[in-house]
Amino acid sequence: MVITIEHQAPRKEVESLIRDIESKGLKVQEMVGETVNILGLIGDTTIVDETRIGMYPWVLSITHIATPYKKVSRQFHPEDTIIDVNGVKIGGNEPIVVMGGPCSVESEEQIMEIAEGVKEAGAKMLRGGAYKPRTSPYVFQGLKSEGIRYLCEAREKTHLPIVTEMMSVDKLDEFVENVDVIQVGARNMQNFDLLRALGKTNKPILLKRGLANTLEEWLMSAEYIMSEGNPNVILCERGIRTFERSTRNTLDLSVIPQIKKISHLPIVIDPSHATGHWELVESMSLAAIAAGCDGLIIEVHNHPEKALSDGQQSLTVEHFAKLIEKGKAIAKIIGRDM
Amino acid sequence: MVITIEHQAPRKEVESLIRDIESKGLKVQEMVGETVNILGLIGDTTIVDETRIGMYPWVLSITHIATPYKKVSRQFHPEDTIIDVNGVKIGGNEPIVVMGGPCSVESEEQIMEIAEGVKEAGAKMLRGGAYKPRTSPYVFQGLKSEGIRYLCEAREKTHLPIVTEMMSVDKLDEFVENVDVIQVGARNMQNFDLLRALGKTNKPILLKRGLANTLEEWLMSAEYIMSEGNPNVILCERGIRTFERSTRNTLDLSVIPQIKKISHLPIVIDPSHATGHWELVESMSLAAIAAGCDGLIIEVHNHPEKALSDGQQSLTVEHFAKLIEKGKAIAKIIGRDM
Amino acid sequence: MVITIEHQAPRKEVESLIRDIESKGLKVQEMVGETVNILGLIGDTTIVDETRIGMYPWVLSITHIATPYKKVSRQFHPEDTIIDVNGVKIGGNEPIVVMGGPCSVESEEQIMEIAEGVKEAGAKMLRGGAYKPRTSPYVFQGLKSEGIRYLCEAREKTHLPIVTEMMSVDKLDEFVENVDVIQVGARNMQNFDLLRALGKTNKPILLKRGLANTLEEWLMSAEYIMSEGNPNVILCERGIRTFERSTRNTLDLSVIPQIKKISHLPIVIDPSHATGHWELVESMSLAAIAAGCDGLIIEVHNHPEKALSDGQQSLTVEHFAKLIEKGKAIAKIIGRDM
Amino acid sequence: MVITIEHQAPRKEVESLIRDIESKGLKVQEMVGETVNILGLIGDTTIVDETRIGMYPWVLSITHIATPYKKVSRQFHPEDTIIDVNGVKIGGNEPIVVMGGPCSVESEEQIMEIAEGVKEAGAKMLRGGAYKPRTSPYVFQGLKSEGIRYLCEAREKTHLPIVTEMMSVDKLDEFVENVDVIQVGARNMQNFDLLRALGKTNKPILLKRGLANTLEEWLMSAEYIMSEGNPNVILCERGIRTFERSTRNTLDLSVIPQIKKISHLPIVIDPSHATGHWELVESMSLAAIAAGCDGLIIEVHNHPEKALSDGQQSLTVEHFAKLIEKGKAIAKIIGRDM
Repeated sequence: MVITIEHQAPRKEVESLIRDIESKGLKVQEMVGETVNILGLIGDTTIVDETRIGMYPWVLSITHIATPYKKVSRQFHPEDTIIDVNGVKIGGNEPIVVMGGPCSVESEEQIMEIAEGVKEAGAKMLRGGAYKPRTSPYVFQGLKSEGIRYLCEAREKTHLPIVTEMMSVDKLDEFVENVDVIQVGARNMQNFDLLRALGKTNKPILLKRGLANTLEEWLMSAEYIMSEGNPNVILCERGIRTFERSTRNTLDLSVIPQIKKISHLPIVIDPSHATGHWELVESMSLAAIAAGCDGLIIEVHNHPEKALSDGQQSLTVEHFAKLIEKGKAIAKIIGRDM
Repeated sequence: MVITIEHQAPRKEVESLIRDIESKGLKVQEMVGETVNILGLIGDTTIVDETRIGMYPWVLSITHIATPYKKVSRQFHPEDTIIDVNGVKIGGNEPIVVMGGPCSVESEEQIMEIAEGVKEAGAKMLRGGAYKPRTSPYVFQGLKSEGIRYLCEAREKTHLPIVTEMMSVDKLDEFVENVDVIQVGARNMQNFDLLRALGKTNKPILLKRGLANTLEEWLMSAEYIMSEGNPNVILCERGIRTFERSTRNTLDLSVIPQIKKISHLPIVIDPSHATGHWELVESMSLAAIAAGCDGLIIEVHNHPEKALSDGQQSLTVEHFAKLIEKGKAIAKIIGRDM
Repeated sequence: MVITIEHQAPRKEVESLIRDIESKGLKVQEMVGETVNILGLIGDTTIVDETRIGMYPWVLSITHIATPYKKVSRQFHPEDTIIDVNGVKIGGNEPIVVMGGPCSVESEEQIMEIAEGVKEAGAKMLRGGAYKPRTSPYVFQGLKSEGIRYLCEAREKTHLPIVTEMMSVDKLDEFVENVDVIQVGARNMQNFDLLRALGKTNKPILLKRGLANTLEEWLMSAEYIMSEGNPNVILCERGIRTFERSTRNTLDLSVIPQIKKISHLPIVIDPSHATGHWELVESMSLAAIAAGCDGLIIEVHNHPEKALSDGQQSLTVEHFAKLIEKGKAIAKIIGRDM
Repeated sequence: MVITIEHQAPRKEVESLIRDIESKGLKVQEMVGETVNILGLIGDTTIVDETRIGMYPWVLSITHIATPYKKVSRQFHPEDTIIDVNGVKIGGNEPIVVMGGPCSVESEEQIMEIAEGVKEAGAKMLRGGAYKPRTSPYVFQGLKSEGIRYLCEAREKTHLPIVTEMMSVDKLDEFVENVDVIQVGARNMQNFDLLRALGKTNKPILLKRGLANTLEEWLMSAEYIMSEGNPNVILCERGIRTFERSTRNTLDLSVIPQIKKISHLPIVIDPSHATGHWELVESMSLAAIAAGCDGLIIEVHNHPEKALSDGQQSLTVEHFAKLIEKGKAIAKIIGRDM
């Protein structure tokens, strides 16, 4: 951490700031310039509260050099994390994992039919929303526990592990007992109580990036989960909010090589929510594979035109199967299986 | 709601769509054009699930004409809502309410000293964070229940109602029992379970706008609270995330006249979080008053340079008192007291 | 400027970088840390090409401490710049200047009628577009030279200086000869050839902030004009592009106190383009005055419903006159005339 | 185009609006609802000035159904446009074209060495900036005419067509005479005079997307060029500005399938400017190929660490060659050559 302070700051106050920092076990070096002095902080700066230092009136700027996260950082954990979800491994050089399924679980028949379809097409996990975050209180909010039950039945039949979103801490037991990968949705990425509760389990967590959250904030939310003891975090990019409205969100594929560089966690791409149009899903999926993602989570529906939510962005099972075929070929070129 | 469909869509399918819509009690009128046909939906369209209709493959676009909210809308509730917080009224043509206090409650002495200071300066409510949402798990997270207790003591002494943030449903009882205005933070604006739980109380709720949420989404979150039966929602703009980084966020003051036009709910401005710099707080506060806000929520600290969080954006009690003086004069010009 | 480099960088290469920097007349101090070393650059860093240094492979980060601009900076020019436009002064503690007029000059009668209307209402300058930047090549592009001629006639009659946009360097003579304040539109804020050409004149320039340009980039564009010798730059905020679409753009009023702090140039607000709705113009104008702006540029039309462009955001002359009345009262409270 | 108007609008005024529209040769159909009436406009709506209609006080909303562009639209030109640049074809099912070269031309030796390097590696065109748009007036602005001359020499030696940016209309002759593809930079995407001037030539134009411009605005700028008679427009995505700052811009690869769907023009991706980090260039290039782009424009330098601008984002020739090898394999899978 580098702190710049005005050259004319009273000596007494600079020294009080330095002592304040040193009291936390850090070393401080000072460099005297013409208009500013520079303090270099040496040691573990993750415990320094930047806003507190920023309040000293003659502090001009504070620059992080070390990252504010530790457990998610590749620096302290050079090997890739590989997460085992009931035998399906994700991360590292493991085969790229495709998760497929409907936006919402709508009925037993629907999820059964789709589950078998995506399995045959090559999916390795089944996704499906039971508790649905919806902007309006007046539209379908998911089948809730009934949806979880149908997902479990689909798992029993297909042996695909299930991925589904948990919106509230009070459902923790239900999810820990029944679900294989617990999803944290974009709107809850900074619901810190939820993150902490999930950090106390040992379940794999699929942590979606928030609508307008930076890479650093996203990693800090993963740090929340890991700092409570749960190392099984899978990051999921699902598009960010920008000025552009011709797609639902703007898919930021550059996070794939960036995450790979700064973190050891697996990174999954959700092209369905990111674009909002099924016609863009195939090309964005292939792009994600070419860019090095560890997994894809894709909406698939048996009757997209009758879907109760997000039908616009769902593929048919047939289209999904073709996508996987092409994806496998691209994966091979960059040295991965799928 | 206006739906446009391709002219060459098979007649049978158009009719199936029309029947689908009519089955919800709406009337449908059709207009035949050269390249597109237009369906006009007449009736209560808030129950129509747009994503579902969007899935019909020959639907080109769906345009909302009626708003998707009802209870928050001025259309169905033409008079301003005035909320009574232990005798302090906010909204309508009531005096502009200033809420002042520290970002975080840090100690009994601190909150007592600030509470008395802001009261003397003219504040009508006391703000202070007890449960703090922080990006990093390694920094101060608030005094929690102890902080709530100190706030209650400060209220006892000053008779200022207290405003503080609730982050999780499992604290509902503690907040309903102790707090006068329950704040929903920007990060939780779309934590729908939290909104629903608060909707079942009759406490005034200060609903902050999310970092990257549109006006419509914000009003829909208010609708969540109101649809459960709680009419006491105060909207609070606290800056949105944009590409600009010289301020912490970009304060969007245009929401004041916009909210006034489309909704009957009171609107409060938080210039401290929005800008992140105490030097900008006064001018943005005066601007908000001139633009017609119903209240201000401002960070004030007795020793800003020692604040445990967000000191950079806090005013001293003296500066806060001067701001209120100027604010009163501006309020008078636009026909309001303060 | 602070450069951080990896601790294990080869000594030879660090020294080559230091010599490279010193060859530009700067002094370099080095601080050795545990994981990174820090170079502090002392002297005029505006000539340092950051991207060049960033290329050294073991450079981790580069932080500006000094601003990259000089002539626009208050640091090097502590007194406010006051610009004299044919006797109308703008900036410093001069009265707030209101510029009014139509988006586009449409006819001689139209501009004459509006010019007299806005003058009577209290405007001190006349605005009106003759050359219009339009997103579509198929819609009205302005009356061009004919429009300039009508503006000149309106000036003759009302003695109001005229403000109008120049889109291309090849019109420089026409503008220098006829126009009092040359406007650079948002889309041309980084048209550096245009800026340089205007920098060689001594005309007052109204430099609008680009749609998605930071405060720093905006000031750098002003620096382009000033570095060529023209000190007469007026900054104009007209809204930035964000995810929010209920307003045309998001008006960023926090730039007023920020510009005042870091620069000596006058700052003008355009609430008409910023919001895109005439109903929001009055409240945003009053807010801008309360926040300390030096001027306002407002669209006014005699028959807004027949305007050839941007009628939606134009006030009637009557509404404009009332706005000025209220504005004067608010100005007085913050110690300004208008 | 669909216009909604308030149900209680005076009949006389609705009819005046309808006549106004019909006078432009369009047909208008009216649908009467409970709270709003709907006007459907049938015919060529590109000539309708939306802002003009929006001014009628009882107009509630205007929705485009037809796109506002014609010449760029696939609807009116179903086959892909293939542009011939001195024998190198781009677009349609032609091989993917790689353009490589330095950000700036720095010297004769430099451009010669790089030109030969990129040719050998497989590039089909040579890029290099001679006139450079730089945020600061104090840093290197390009070799200008001298740079163009060196590019021509490099072309003579390697037979690679040259791509370089034109910033100002007054350089038109120099560019038409010497350059093979004239680049319009992101900052000039809405410099309409420049677009029009280029539209009067028959040179291939590489039109970069503006920093914060929507897909529709970008296509409208292409329409400016095409409406003047020049059909040779190549679109180039180079990242958009968002809240995220860990990359220079956010690369929006979803434009590839979107452009392919709505337009017949070729689409090229610039991963170097988009990301700003050479380490991300390879994966983003492969992703762009997988997503179906028609070309790539990539920064390559012989000594990236000594580059006078944008060295951080340049590849070495060796890395560039490897990228092309992998790219060819991916192209084959999606049925393209490279």
